[in-house]
Amino acid sequence: MTAGLTTAQLIEKHRPTLDQALDAIRSRAYWSPHPEHPKAYGPEGAPGSLGAAEGQAAFDAQRGKRFELEQPGTDGWAGSEVSPYGFELGIEYPHADVDVLLPALRAAMPAWREAGPRARAAVCLEILARINARTHEFAHAVMHTSGQAFMMAFQAGGPHAQDRGLEAVAYAYAEQTNAAPETAEWVKPQGKRDPLKLNKQFTTVPRGVSLLIGCNTFPTWNGYPGLFASLATGNAVLVKPHPRAVLPLALTVRVAREVLAEAGFSPDLVALAAERDGEGIAKSLAVRPEIRVIDYTGSTAFGDWLEANARQAQVFTEKAGVNTVVVDSTDDYKGMLSNLAFSLSLYSGQMCTTPQNLLIPREGIATDAGHKTFDEFVADLATAVEKLLGDDARANALLGAIVNDQVKARIDAAAQLGEVALASRTVANPDFPGATVRTPVIVKLDGAKPDAEAAYFSECFGPVSFAVAVDSTADAVELLRRTVREKGAMTVGAYTTSADAERLIEEACLEECAQLSLNLTGGVYVNQTAAFSDFHGSGGNPAANAVLCDSAFVASRFRTVEVRRQA
Amino acid sequence: MTAGLTTAQLIEKHRPTLDQALDAIRSRAYWSPHPEHPKAYGPEGAPGSLGAAEGQAAFDAQRGKRFELEQPGTDGWAGSEVSPYGFELGIEYPHADVDVLLPALRAAMPAWREAGPRARAAVCLEILARINARTHEFAHAVMHTSGQAFMMAFQAGGPHAQDRGLEAVAYAYAEQTNAAPETAEWVKPQGKRDPLKLNKQFTTVPRGVSLLIGCNTFPTWNGYPGLFASLATGNAVLVKPHPRAVLPLALTVRVAREVLAEAGFSPDLVALAAERDGEGIAKSLAVRPEIRVIDYTGSTAFGDWLEANARQAQVFTEKAGVNTVVVDSTDDYKGMLSNLAFSLSLYSGQMCTTPQNLLIPREGIATDAGHKTFDEFVADLATAVEKLLGDDARANALLGAIVNDQVKARIDAAAQLGEVALASRTVANPDFPGATVRTPVIVKLDGAKPDAEAAYFSECFGPVSFAVAVDSTADAVELLRRTVREKGAMTVGAYTTSADAERLIEEACLEECAQLSLNLTGGVYVNQTAAFSDFHGSGGNPAANAVLCDSAFVASRFRTVEVRRQA
Repeated sequence: MTAGLTTAQLIEKHRPTLDQALDAIRSRAYWSPHPEHPKAYGPEGAPGSLGAAEGQAAFDAQRGKRFELEQPGTDGWAGSEVSPYGFELGIEYPHADVDVLLPALRAAMPAWREAGPRARAAVCLEILARINARTHEFAHAVMHTSGQAFMMAFQAGGPHAQDRGLEAVAYAYAEQTNAAPETAEWVKPQGKRDPLKLNKQFTTVPRGVSLLIGCNTFPTWNGYPGLFASLATGNAVLVKPHPRAVLPLALTVRVAREVLAEAGFSPDLVALAAERDGEGIAKSLAVRPEIRVIDYTGSTAFGDWLEANARQAQVFTEKAGVNTVVVDSTDDYKGMLSNLAFSLSLYSGQMCTTPQNLLIPREGIATDAGHKTFDEFVADLATAVEKLLGDDARANALLGAIVNDQVKARIDAAAQLGEVALASRTVANPDFPGATVRTPVIVKLDGAKPDAEAAYFSECFGPVSFAVAVDSTADAVELLRRTVREKGAMTVGAYTTSADAERLIEEACLEECAQLSLNLTGGVYVNQTAAFSDFHGSGGNPAANAVLCDSAFVASRFRTVEVRRQA
Repeated sequence: MTAGLTTAQLIEKHRPTLDQALDAIRSRAYWSPHPEHPKAYGPEGAPGSLGAAEGQAAFDAQRGKRFELEQPGTDGWAGSEVSPYGFELGIEYPHADVDVLLPALRAAMPAWREAGPRARAAVCLEILARINARTHEFAHAVMHTSGQAFMMAFQAGGPHAQDRGLEAVAYAYAEQTNAAPETAEWVKPQGKRDPLKLNKQFTTVPRGVSLLIGCNTFPTWNGYPGLFASLATGNAVLVKPHPRAVLPLALTVRVAREVLAEAGFSPDLVALAAERDGEGIAKSLAVRPEIRVIDYTGSTAFGDWLEANARQAQVFTEKAGVNTVVVDSTDDYKGMLSNLAFSLSLYSGQMCTTPQNLLIPREGIATDAGHKTFDEFVADLATAVEKLLGDDARANALLGAIVNDQVKARIDAAAQLGEVALASRTVANPDFPGATVRTPVIVKLDGAKPDAEAAYFSECFGPVSFAVAVDSTADAVELLRRTVREKGAMTVGAYTTSADAERLIEEACLEECAQLSLNLTGGVYVNQTAAFSDFHGSGGNPAANAVLCDSAFVASRFRTVEVRRQA
C-alpha cells in the first residue's frame, strides 16, 4: 500500500475513481471499482491486497486477543462476540470514556474542515482502497458476526459495502461543491448612485460529531454510507457497533485512523465505542449535545426512540418494514418460481429487503404454464425452494447461519400462524457444527380472515414468508398500499403480464413511495440493490426515513457558512 | 396577464428566468427578475401590473368583505386582523373542515406529480409572475398585517419575497433533475455468462401534503420559500397563516389556485386554512398523518414542539435567536455608527436578523477617529440613532409600527434591565394616528456581572439592544460562541481592523455555524440577506434547523421511486 501520501497526492491518485463515481450516480448505469470475485485479490490479484489464506490468517490472528486502537479515553475493554457459526471470537475492544473521547473527536474537526471537500473525498477513497485490499479479512469478520455465508459476506460485506461507501463520498463531494462557490462578488446596481458591493466567502462546515449505530446483519454494508457521508462532509464519526458485530467496524475504524494519521490529520476523526453486555450506550450517546448526526439501522422501536429523542441531531434511520410481492400473472412461471425461491432463501431471509408477504389472487394466476390455482402456485414455490436447497452444501452456501435465537424462535413459531406450505428444515454444516442453519418456512394465510392480519401485518424478520390469498389483484394492490403506508417497505416486487395491473401496482408504489421490482425472473433479485444505480429504501415510508444514497442523505450533514465583507 | 397558457407554453415563457435563477444560485452573484422600485409597476411599468393607485384600491376593496376562495370543505368564516396602524381589516376568510380539505389536497397530487419537475417549475414561476404584477396590492397587505413601513412592505413583502420563492423553485428544480435520470440501462458483466440487464425508471414523488405555518412579521418573505419548494417538488400545500397576517397569504393562495386551474391542474394543490381567534389549529394540523412537510417561522417554544411532535413530517423551522455584533475596532467609525444605527432601527428591530447584543471591550475600541471608551461608543451610537430618527417622517418610514403589545411591553420593561443609554421615543404617525411607533432603546450591561446575563442571554424581540461591556475582544468571541451554541443566531456582525481578531471571529462563526457580516459601514446591513446570494440562517445552530435556501431545504421534500424491470 501507498503509505504516507500527502493529501495532494491522494487527490491525484483517487481523482479518476471519484470522477467515475460522480458520473455513475448521475447515469445510474452499472459501475464498480471493487471486484466481487475472491480471486481478484491476493498475490495474483490487486497489488498489495490480501489473498484468501492471508485474509483467513489475519482473522484467525485477531481471535482471542485485544484489539488495540490507541484512541483517547480508553477506560477498559469490552467484547463478547460469538460467531453464529458456533464459536466465541474472544476479542476485546477498547471501551471508551466518552467524556474524554468526544472532546478528542471535536478537536480533530477544524483541520478536517479546513482541508475542504476534495481532500476529504481523497482521504475517504484511500480508506476505502485500504479496506478493499483487506476484503478477504473483512469477509471472515462479517461472516462470523452476521452469520452470512462466506461468499455473501465476501461480496456484500466487502466490495458491495465499499461501493456504498464510495457512493456516499461521491454524493457528499457533489453536494458540497455544488452548494456554493468558494467566493462570490455581489454587485447590486443602485440607479445613479454607486452600486452596493460585497465580497462573499462560502465555507462548508460540519454539523458536529456523527454517531454510527451499527447493525448485526450488515455491519459494513449498512454502516459505510453514513460513516463515509459524514466523514466526507467534515464531521468526526463515532462508531458504535452492534455488540454482536464489532469486528468488521473495528477493522474499519483501524484502517480509517491509520490513513487519517498518515495523511496528516488527527486519527480521532474516527473512533470506536464498543460496549459491555447490556450497557446500552447508544441511548446515552444519542442524546449527547456533541452528537449532531446519527445513522441507525435496526428495530423500529429504537429507531422511533432516536427520532423522537435525539432532537439535537439529524437522525437517519432504517427500521423494520413488511415487504410485499404481488403475484398477478407471468409469462415465465419457472423463472418466477426460481427467482422467488432464491429471494426467500438468501441469508435465511435475514435481509431488510427479503419479501415477506406474497399476495396471490385466491382464484389463481395465469402463467405460460397454464392457469395455476393459489394452492398449486404455493406448492410449486415450496418445491422450488426445496430443490434450490436440496443439496446441503449449496444450502449452506446460500442460507448462512441464523443470526440469533429470536430468529430461530420465529421460525419455530411460524407453524402456529397458519397452514404450513413449506416446513423449515435444519441443515447440518460440516465445517461449523455449531451453526444453526434453517431453510425457509412458507405459511398460507387467507387475507380475508381478520385473524390472519396479525401475522402478515407485522414484520417477521427471518426466513418466514406468508402466501396470502386475496380476492383479486386489485385487492392485492390495496393491501400493498396499506402495508407500505402503515408498516413501511424496503422493497416491493410484482409479477404481471397485464398492462392494467402493472399500472395499478406502479401507481401504488409511486403514491406510497416504495421501490418496485417488476417481473424479475433471472439473476437479479428483489432483495439486492446495486450502489450507484439502485436506491436502497425510499425514505418516504415508515421503513426508513433515509435512502442509500441520495442528495438528502448528505445535504444536511453539512452547512454552508457565509462571511461577507464590504468590498 | 397571459391566462390559460398550456404547461408547454408556460415552460417556454419562463425558461429564461428559470435558467438565470439556476445560474444565480451557483454563481451567487447579484440577480433579481423582480424590480424593487414602486415605479417599475403600473401603467408606465411592467405590462399588466398594478400601479400604486390600483394596488391601494385593490387593498381597500377587500376590506370589510369576505375573501372568497371556493375551496372544498369551507364550513364557516374566520378573520379578525387589525392593522398595526390602528384599524380593523374586517376581512373574513373561509374556515376549513380539514377532514374535507385534506383529502382534496391529496387527490390533487397525482396529476401534479405526473407533470414532472419542469412543468411544476413553470407553473410556480407563473404564480410568482402574477404575484409580482400585484406587488402594490401585496405591499398594503403586508404593511397592514406586519406593521412594516410602506417601502419595506413593498420591497421585502414584494420583490424580495418573490425572489426567495423563485430561488426555492430553482433549488427544487435542480435537485429533482439532478436526483436521477428518467431512465437508465444497467448492464452488469457476468464473466463468460450473459450480463445481467435491467431497465430502470426513476420518478420524483412528493412526500404528501405540506403545511406552511406563517408568521406575523414577514408573511410572504418567510412563507414563500417553503411554499414554493414544496409545490415545485410535487406536494400540495396547505397554508395556515398567522391569525394577524392572513391577507398576504390569502392573496397568494388565490393567485396560486387561479394559475393552477388555468394550467389544467386542480386548484386544490394550494389551499388556505384560516382560523378563528384562539383556535390554535396549527397544533392539530401538524400531527395529521396527511401532513408530511412543515415549514414554520415563529417562537422557539412552538418550533421545538413541532420538531418533537410532528414526527410524521419533515419539519423546517426558523425560531428565535440572539444576534451578536462584536465591536473590536474600525477604520470608519462614522460609517460603523450609521450602519449599526440603521440596523437597530429598521422595522423597529422586529426582524429575526436584527442585532441584539453589541459586545464591546470595556477598555474601549480603536477607531479612525481615535480611541473611544465603552461609554463614548455607546453614547455615539445613541446619537447616531437619534439623528437617523430625528425627523418624524423619516422615523415613520424606517420604523413602521410596533406589531403587537408584547413588543411594546418589552420596550417599556427594558429600562429595568440596566442603565438606559438611549431611551425609546414615541413617534406620531400623522397618516395613521392609531399606530404605535417607537424608536429603539439601548441598555448598557456589564458582561462580567452574572445578573446581566438574564437580560442579554435571551431573545428580546423588538427594538431593544444591549451594549455589553466585555473584558476583551477574545472575551467577546467566547461570549459570541456560547450565545450561538446555546441560544442560536440568525446573524453575526463584527467590526475589526485586526487580522487576529478577524480570524478569531471567523473561526468562531465557522465552528458554531453562524452567518457573519464583517465591517459593514455602507448601504448593506447585517439584517438583510439577498436571495440567490446570501444564506438566511445557517441551519446549524438553535435559531433555525433550515436555511433559505440550500439543497437541504428542498432535497427531502421529495423522494425518488425506482421501478426496475428485467431487460
